[in-house]
Amino acid sequence: MPHPLCVPATIGRALNLAAALLLCAAPRAIAATPAPEAVAAQLRDAAMAGHTIAYSWVSELTTRFGPRPAGSLSEQQAAEWAVARLKALGFENVHMETFPLTAWVRGTESAQLIGPPAQPLVVAALGETPPTPAGGLEAEVAIFPTLEDLKAAPPGSLSGRIALVTQRTVRAQDGEGYGAAVPIRTDGPAEAARRGAIAFLLRSVGTDNHRLAHTGTARYVDGRVPVPAFALSNPDADQIERLAALGLGVRVRLFSDASYVRDAHSQNVIAEVRGRERPEEVVLLGAHLDSWDQGTGATDDGAGMAIITAAAKLIRDLPHRPRRTVRVVLFGAEEVAQPDPPGGAFGGNSYVRNHQAELASHVLTGESDFGTERIYRLALPQAAADSEFAKMTLRVLTPIGVLLAPHPPQEVGADVGPSAKAGVPAFLLGQDGTRYFDIHHTADDTLDKVDRAQLDQNVAAWAALVWLAADSAVDFRTHAAPAPQP
Amino acid sequence: MPHPLCVPATIGRALNLAAALLLCAAPRAIAATPAPEAVAAQLRDAAMAGHTIAYSWVSELTTRFGPRPAGSLSEQQAAEWAVARLKALGFENVHMETFPLTAWVRGTESAQLIGPPAQPLVVAALGETPPTPAGGLEAEVAIFPTLEDLKAAPPGSLSGRIALVTQRTVRAQDGEGYGAAVPIRTDGPAEAARRGAIAFLLRSVGTDNHRLAHTGTARYVDGRVPVPAFALSNPDADQIERLAALGLGVRVRLFSDASYVRDAHSQNVIAEVRGRERPEEVVLLGAHLDSWDQGTGATDDGAGMAIITAAAKLIRDLPHRPRRTVRVVLFGAEEVAQPDPPGGAFGGNSYVRNHQAELASHVLTGESDFGTERIYRLALPQAAADSEFAKMTLRVLTPIGVLLAPHPPQEVGADVGPSAKAGVPAFLLGQDGTRYFDIHHTADDTLDKVDRAQLDQNVAAWAALVWLAADSAVDFRTHAAPAPQP
Repeated sequence: MPHPLCVPATIGRALNLAAALLLCAAPRAIAATPAPEAVAAQLRDAAMAGHTIAYSWVSELTTRFGPRPAGSLSEQQAAEWAVARLKALGFENVHMETFPLTAWVRGTESAQLIGPPAQPLVVAALGETPPTPAGGLEAEVAIFPTLEDLKAAPPGSLSGRIALVTQRTVRAQDGEGYGAAVPIRTDGPAEAARRGAIAFLLRSVGTDNHRLAHTGTARYVDGRVPVPAFALSNPDADQIERLAALGLGVRVRLFSDASYVRDAHSQNVIAEVRGRERPEEVVLLGAHLDSWDQGTGATDDGAGMAIITAAAKLIRDLPHRPRRTVRVVLFGAEEVAQPDPPGGAFGGNSYVRNHQAELASHVLTGESDFGTERIYRLALPQAAADSEFAKMTLRVLTPIGVLLAPHPPQEVGADVGPSAKAGVPAFLLGQDGTRYFDIHHTADDTLDKVDRAQLDQNVAAWAALVWLAADSAVDFRTHAAPAPQP
Repeated sequence: MPHPLCVPATIGRALNLAAALLLCAAPRAIAATPAPEAVAAQLRDAAMAGHTIAYSWVSELTTRFGPRPAGSLSEQQAAEWAVARLKALGFENVHMETFPLTAWVRGTESAQLIGPPAQPLVVAALGETPPTPAGGLEAEVAIFPTLEDLKAAPPGSLSGRIALVTQRTVRAQDGEGYGAAVPIRTDGPAEAARRGAIAFLLRSVGTDNHRLAHTGTARYVDGRVPVPAFALSNPDADQIERLAALGLGVRVRLFSDASYVRDAHSQNVIAEVRGRERPEEVVLLGAHLDSWDQGTGATDDGAGMAIITAAAKLIRDLPHRPRRTVRVVLFGAEEVAQPDPPGGAFGGNSYVRNHQAELASHVLTGESDFGTERIYRLALPQAAADSEFAKMTLRVLTPIGVLLAPHPPQEVGADVGPSAKAGVPAFLLGQDGTRYFDIHHTADDTLDKVDRAQLDQNVAAWAALVWLAADSAVDFRTHAAPAPQP
């Protein structure tokens, strides 16, 4: 897939990119500016050959700071580190934009099957859920195979009990199994409470069979999550189903001392490669700096940060800048819900509030937040789907295994989603998520899960596409391509 | 590999084995007793077709009782259940033999990297290790790439520090990587204490990269393990190595409130298929009933129990008994060390004490305690390695993928090891352990890791071999084969 003749192995990683591109440019490019498509192919090949900062970014970030929960000191220190690094890498306008947050702190938690004999259960409290009473709570478990079965239970029918939904997450390449399962986590606690349950359990929203529970945020209803709620690891959910199938009663004890910090804050980190001709026109790249607290957020979303930052760095190091500005935003507090409607003060909303006046000149946006495996498809805004721009981009990306998706992006993510909702055209570089939900939101999200070659393929696709968009004059809202400026 | 024509799929699991064997027998066998080799092949094929109780045994045992730590109520209740089940299955002389034990109870434990920012570490206290002080302990970590490096450190050089050995466990099919790494766990605490360390850490003895630490027993020295000792999950050990490589100091806080129960007891469960001609001659099959406390002991060693019990049950249900007695022993307290030398009161030693007078008429022994994956080789006692018995056995086992190992068994396991040491000839049905140490001694040792088809292949090999040995008159000490009895 890479073009080994273009960046010979003997050049190695020691040579800087400018040198690599010079060696790689077509003969006439030494005198004239090379065509955008040729530059995109060179960026692609340099990334595929490993000339990127992506792995060192995610390695150092996750090693130095470990978990980076929204609103924590660790998230803040990681943001400060990112600002310093982005400046050292030569980005411009590097700064931080803080915003207020209600933070949630897991504390300690535990769960047991009441015996005899007692059996430990592996659980993770869902984000934003309240603690149990100090002595824990204990009750019989009512099992529902699906969320719809829970919703069909009459009011009051779960009085004094713990509701458990055992619905499975379907493994799917594009993440649609996750999309189908998330409502169990977000809506389950309120649906259970409405029927009298004193706590809510779900089989983890995840596709693995490890004794690690998948956390993730619940949803505030009228400013609170109504009952304590926990994800069970998938083998523990299996165990409870088998106990019930043996005709044995299932009673569970739950404990959590989770707490809230009402006056916390988070921050977005912003950095730019300023455009040479139309600097006010922005191609906005997003990923998030916070992570869940159990792992170190290597794939969610350390890798996303590494991919967009490394892609922008390759563009920054070109002999000449793109026409438009490339803006990298490392968003804070992506993972959490907030008590104030509609959806609260997370980084994506904060960005839109702070940059409202600029949004009309944001020409395109995309987000990297789906792990570290290879990109296999590109979705472009509807207006550009059949364009010359799309054809040129595909000529560059097809050699590294990227298809054109049949539809524009269905969902663009929580970070740039608010910008897209405000009218900024969005693209999707769709990653292979077949294995992503094996480790998503678990303690297992650590650096060893990052495959360097696939990470580099991501950088290659991002660098090429972002360069092409930023160096063009295409209006992705209408796909009007104005006459080139002098 | 199975013989589908012999036990057609339409027969299903509902038919009992006797019926299956009748359908399967050669024409002349309807009138006469079939040859031992033909019976062995029929047992093999019945097991390969799924006519075994193995999966239901390991499923129900691990579901009802979960973890079964040595000396616990859960181990005792599981033993009582096993006695009742073995009687219901038609075994003879089913009984329990108890023995005294010092039990160890994990309690709670935790570990953190001291920041800023602080990072949680996933650890598991090693079995038999003492608790930390009630407030925990905190110290700088001294990192040693191998146990030999630790041993090379001068006395007093680790004063007030925590020693960490980061040596990796090599993945190997026959488990030799485990054998090479175990001394770190058993000897590390004393080696660290001798040099002044206040606690000992090791990279887990395991081949996975999940955030689950591998426990396992340490070794008593003069009646105690000298310092608190913990296994780190492998990603956490990576993280510490990277922090050190970044030049950052590594300080760790450790807590454990592990405790001992000095007057506990454990028990062996014994059941027999009595021989028709030489009932005093015993083929001894072993596996262990206790498990580590983090998982449910599905592969270590619920599966081993299931395999030997299911194999003996197939033999028990034959139209006629083997000449010799087949004795199944589900050993207690295999996983633990004991303070009294040499090696203490675990089930294998207890069996030898109780059955000393019978050992001379134990003709052969073997143990199943290496997970649930397929058997790929057979090792026979030296005296039988080149025998007609070996050739006949291989004719039966080759079709299900079993080789003859080039050497007699090197090690036969902790359960039947003491009997072998007392002179009982031992065999090994060697399983593929390539993936066994991914989950061994972790919370991940749960039922979902058991592959039914491979479990059945194990039963097939055990049933065939045990039948052939028990129906023969071979002396495996000398390989003298006396003239058949009338």
